[in-house]
Amino acid sequence: MHSIDELRDIFLQHLQNARFTSEPKNLYEPNNYFLGIGGKRLRPVLLLLSTEIFGGNVTDAMNAALAIEFFHNFTLIHDDVMDDAPLRRNFETIHQKYNLNTAILSGDVLMVKACEYLGKLDDKYFRTCFDIFTKTAIEVCDGQQYDIDFESKQNVTHVDYIEMIRLKTSVLLAASMKIGAIIGNANNEDADLMYEYAENLGIAFQIQDDILDCFGDEKLVGKQPGGDIIQNKKTLLLIEALERSKTNNDNQLTQIITDKHIENHQKINSVLKIFDQYKIKEFAVQQRNSYVEKSVKALAKINLDNTKKDVLKSLVDYLVVRDF
Amino acid sequence: MHSIDELRDIFLQHLQNARFTSEPKNLYEPNNYFLGIGGKRLRPVLLLLSTEIFGGNVTDAMNAALAIEFFHNFTLIHDDVMDDAPLRRNFETIHQKYNLNTAILSGDVLMVKACEYLGKLDDKYFRTCFDIFTKTAIEVCDGQQYDIDFESKQNVTHVDYIEMIRLKTSVLLAASMKIGAIIGNANNEDADLMYEYAENLGIAFQIQDDILDCFGDEKLVGKQPGGDIIQNKKTLLLIEALERSKTNNDNQLTQIITDKHIENHQKINSVLKIFDQYKIKEFAVQQRNSYVEKSVKALAKINLDNTKKDVLKSLVDYLVVRDF
Repeated sequence: MHSIDELRDIFLQHLQNARFTSEPKNLYEPNNYFLGIGGKRLRPVLLLLSTEIFGGNVTDAMNAALAIEFFHNFTLIHDDVMDDAPLRRNFETIHQKYNLNTAILSGDVLMVKACEYLGKLDDKYFRTCFDIFTKTAIEVCDGQQYDIDFESKQNVTHVDYIEMIRLKTSVLLAASMKIGAIIGNANNEDADLMYEYAENLGIAFQIQDDILDCFGDEKLVGKQPGGDIIQNKKTLLLIEALERSKTNNDNQLTQIITDKHIENHQKINSVLKIFDQYKIKEFAVQQRNSYVEKSVKALAKINLDNTKKDVLKSLVDYLVVRDF
Repeated sequence: MHSIDELRDIFLQHLQNARFTSEPKNLYEPNNYFLGIGGKRLRPVLLLLSTEIFGGNVTDAMNAALAIEFFHNFTLIHDDVMDDAPLRRNFETIHQKYNLNTAILSGDVLMVKACEYLGKLDDKYFRTCFDIFTKTAIEVCDGQQYDIDFESKQNVTHVDYIEMIRLKTSVLLAASMKIGAIIGNANNEDADLMYEYAENLGIAFQIQDDILDCFGDEKLVGKQPGGDIIQNKKTLLLIEALERSKTNNDNQLTQIITDKHIENHQKINSVLKIFDQYKIKEFAVQQRNSYVEKSVKALAKINLDNTKKDVLKSLVDYLVVRDF
């Protein structure tokens, strides 16, 4: 079995070989650019890992891994337009570097390319993987819409929020590991358990992201904490703090986040003080841990020997119980 | 066998039943709106016709017909954004009625829905239809990009133009009829011939559109002729007229189309005079007829009885040798 880093190297080699060379250049060059600006390649790497864990060969799973990475990048390209984001991973986004139409159409064709690569799978796996893929792709779009809706919606609960991040980010991770398991010839029950393991892991990962943005160590995380607070981003922490403030008829938090003249440093300090008052960090950690627990429970039920389960357990530590 | 009109009614009933009812509403309602504003439903209807012609049942082909219609509408929604078009079929386009983000994301999910409906096909046909679908979807994106590129490109030839319209519009018509044939249990050779028939028919149809915009009878076409001329739209006619002018070192046409102060009526008359001088209408009609001929030749080779071939022949008259 390969390590995560080795799988990433293998995947990157295949991604490089899959560079688009066809015409029209104005359609495909932007995708080559965007696929080249990096990223952790978490989804394809975990797909390949899942295949190997069940005794399969990464070569059989490579086209599925590429399909998932293409699909993921298609969503990023369009999300960047919707968020009007000029940068991703410190590189210009497509609509910024080229223009809006290029971002739309290059994204569209990348989605179709994802289908095309999925279509290269062996008949033995194709139909099952395709059904998982379409179901997941619809859920990812639903999640993105909920995320947009929540920006202007009042009274979003932490339950709504977790459902949104499940759809927007976790299901694709879960689908990747399930597809990997299927190509590794796992039985249906184990493939479903891999999905459950990864789905809960994905939610825990996202919650940890929210926690680190508030409470992370700048040196380890690589960015100043409080970015989400400054932008009033509706994270699990802010949503729960607003819920608890409401229950207590306390409008301090609302006042701070609607104050357009407040200085960033002061805003962060004031919000953190309220988070402290309502034990928001404890709440978020407890939520995160509950999803880690669900993930580990699913893992325990998978029919795999302990050496392999240990790899998946260490993945939980790597992705969630992290301070970076 | 059903008539075209009957097939359209059957399709519209199924399209109505396929209305999206799931959440989030802000994602699916715009698609219900857009799918409801009409259109000829040419692609799904011809797909169903093709199934019946080979002795198949429209029920087996319905999910493919819906998939094609969803895919086509996804391209229209995104094309409308790229063209910044406020209206389609006299109704507001999605980005106009809602906003840009809705047009992007609702379009995206409609593309995935197309995949989902295709995935409902019987295993017997699914893989083959899926491969045709992805190949075609990529070609449609390529065609749209060439169309965008041509707007700012000098020296587009009529050969480039025909290749662009083949990709942008004909291949989807051709794929629809091929998929229909496959679901009707046609053999591979006949399915390929149906593709060839429809591909050439589609090109002829598009050329006829260009001809009618210049030379059509206002009462029959339903709009004033010359719209393309006013907008300097690079149709087959303008492209060929520019080519012939260049060969003759004649810059009259370039002067007219770059004159920003010219009055519409005068512009139309002047351009038509040049078209007349260079026998552009004759050229376009000859081009159109050459694709009709290719279409009819492919039809002749299909293994079908004459009654059924007559239906397909009359379709050529209906779609191409028309004055409306």
